[in-house]
Amino acid sequence: MIKRYLMAPGPTPVPAGVLLAMAEPVIHHRTPQFEAIFAEAQEDLKKLFQTTQDVLVLAASGTGAMEAAVSNTLSPDDRVIVVNGGKFGERWAKICGSYGVAVDEIKVEWGKAVSVAEVEAALSRGPARALLIQASETSTGVLHPVKEIAALTRRSQTLLIVDGITAVGVVDLPMDDWGVDVLVTGSQKALMLPPGLAFISLSERAWEATKKARLPKFYFDLTRERDNQAKHTTAYTPAISMIVGLRAALKLILGEGLKQVFARHDRLARAGRAGAQAIGLKLLAPESPSPALTAILVPEKVDGKKLVSYLRDKMGVTFAGGQDHLKGKIVRIAHIGYAGTFDLIVGLGALEMALARFGYPVEFGKSVGAAQAVLMEGMPA
Amino acid sequence: MIKRYLMAPGPTPVPAGVLLAMAEPVIHHRTPQFEAIFAEAQEDLKKLFQTTQDVLVLAASGTGAMEAAVSNTLSPDDRVIVVNGGKFGERWAKICGSYGVAVDEIKVEWGKAVSVAEVEAALSRGPARALLIQASETSTGVLHPVKEIAALTRRSQTLLIVDGITAVGVVDLPMDDWGVDVLVTGSQKALMLPPGLAFISLSERAWEATKKARLPKFYFDLTRERDNQAKHTTAYTPAISMIVGLRAALKLILGEGLKQVFARHDRLARAGRAGAQAIGLKLLAPESPSPALTAILVPEKVDGKKLVSYLRDKMGVTFAGGQDHLKGKIVRIAHIGYAGTFDLIVGLGALEMALARFGYPVEFGKSVGAAQAVLMEGMPA
Repeated sequence: MIKRYLMAPGPTPVPAGVLLAMAEPVIHHRTPQFEAIFAEAQEDLKKLFQTTQDVLVLAASGTGAMEAAVSNTLSPDDRVIVVNGGKFGERWAKICGSYGVAVDEIKVEWGKAVSVAEVEAALSRGPARALLIQASETSTGVLHPVKEIAALTRRSQTLLIVDGITAVGVVDLPMDDWGVDVLVTGSQKALMLPPGLAFISLSERAWEATKKARLPKFYFDLTRERDNQAKHTTAYTPAISMIVGLRAALKLILGEGLKQVFARHDRLARAGRAGAQAIGLKLLAPESPSPALTAILVPEKVDGKKLVSYLRDKMGVTFAGGQDHLKGKIVRIAHIGYAGTFDLIVGLGALEMALARFGYPVEFGKSVGAAQAVLMEGMPA
Repeated sequence: MIKRYLMAPGPTPVPAGVLLAMAEPVIHHRTPQFEAIFAEAQEDLKKLFQTTQDVLVLAASGTGAMEAAVSNTLSPDDRVIVVNGGKFGERWAKICGSYGVAVDEIKVEWGKAVSVAEVEAALSRGPARALLIQASETSTGVLHPVKEIAALTRRSQTLLIVDGITAVGVVDLPMDDWGVDVLVTGSQKALMLPPGLAFISLSERAWEATKKARLPKFYFDLTRERDNQAKHTTAYTPAISMIVGLRAALKLILGEGLKQVFARHDRLARAGRAGAQAIGLKLLAPESPSPALTAILVPEKVDGKKLVSYLRDKMGVTFAGGQDHLKGKIVRIAHIGYAGTFDLIVGLGALEMALARFGYPVEFGKSVGAAQAVLMEGMPA
């Protein structure tokens, strides 16, 4: 008998109330009934994105919204700056490349955040139509300094396009306040839903840019979507049950309160880092860690791939491993979305036991104990 | 955001697959479709009870089956021996008393098991129609020596009536082998179902006794039930969805294997005891502990009632407190049914943190660590 625990940075666990909402009989989408549900979700999405702009809902995974961000704001041969410090930074470059956009890449060592100075230098190398970045780079567990970068781009002609897939609903990322031009996220992270929905919001000047953008698009034509979604419907068939679930999930998030949600993620992340370090493990991104997940270096003598398989197949605990050159070298523990105190305790407890199985000397309870000391902050008096 | 963990000795968590089976549209019970499902569950129940006798299914909670055990085998003024070492021993006495049966009570200190010598003495005081006992006394977390007692009663005219509500599917309790005459359990314990079903099986000589039993009964008339259930139907409307869930739950239990299920409960219980003792806590029943739950004495300066409320309301972890004179003095952590390694880690982690909140000095991770050392036994190489 193996109980399953999902601790990868997406998909993340879905609360029972959301699953039950999604299990309701499917309704038709061209009905006042659906429109009312969608309208509620739309209002709540604006609060989540901290914007007065529309947040458009797409039946796609996050990458679809990333592509929409590119194809709706850019034109062939536009110069863009891409911050590439991991798999998802690389994805921005690939999407732009596929559309013939000229990419000026800022390569960042995996595990490090981009420095504001590097961004400043790239911006000063010549006019850039856009700067594309991750707020939280999921492959390395790094948080990039979006606020500081936005302070640069908002004074320039450069649009700031942010992949907020493991950041929206995790860290404070007030789109309007900071001057983010395009913000994207997906359903299977902090939104506590299965994969299948992507979300995108554009600033006033990003909408201006769409008028001149000449890249081809059809399914991801955001102007057509905006016209439809203003009437609480969608250009093409929406993922109906997902939107029913979305409404339920947003009620949970806003019911808890964004401030509390951010504080919870921060606390879980600090506890995760303390727990890893307490048993002598090193962090991949100690300097600028994302509160969505913690990337931990696997001890030299342990095979990280086998460790992740053992955790998943023998213990029932699904972590993520590393990608590309980090394959086998890191484990990534997520604490994003529907994650609480005891998820982290399970995760660290499992990690201790799995490491012991692989011969790494662990004092049982030490990692858990270090995390508990931090997690006590969340316990009311 | 509080996640909920159910760690009381019933109701216990229900696996998702069982919940989904129960959420299927309700079918009619006077149909071949239902009879086929019921027949499968009946066969598997015999394996669970380790008997060749029928195991009857009642739409009732466990107490209903306890009452059926009494009313179907006894007559007014019969003398019975009741082992009373907790709330459920007391319940046997109350049921017998309600029906005018003469109860010779063996009072056992709460937290202790009855001694075989005491039972022997009671049996020798005069003929007894039945001896009623709990295999596992849920209120104190004690395991009574049913096997040894059965060795006495099977040589006598005394029926051995066993409440196996937190024992069947937890510890090895082979009804036929040991010579248990009546064995009772409920759905919301090791069977991993919600409350609502009770189960009862009678030995050959218990069925003989029913012929002479003159206590009144109607809904719980087991002879009528047996006649109906032999045809895979029930005398009165069965709890249909519960039986659909029962079939699914039994498949899980027998799929894991009874031997493995017993070993898992034993391991979790040993880990629970080790965890409690590692932080200086004392057990209520150190000598004869039940593998279904662990009753832990609350430290003197801590208010046990407030501790249990804090765990439940502020931390989301539902333990049971004590009953009657143990109210506020113990907490009971269950590890029964759909319980695994990480449930225990969550339970002990939560207990550490709650005790710390109440001023009891705890080294975080110490209880968890002691449990982990035991739980490693369950981790494959």
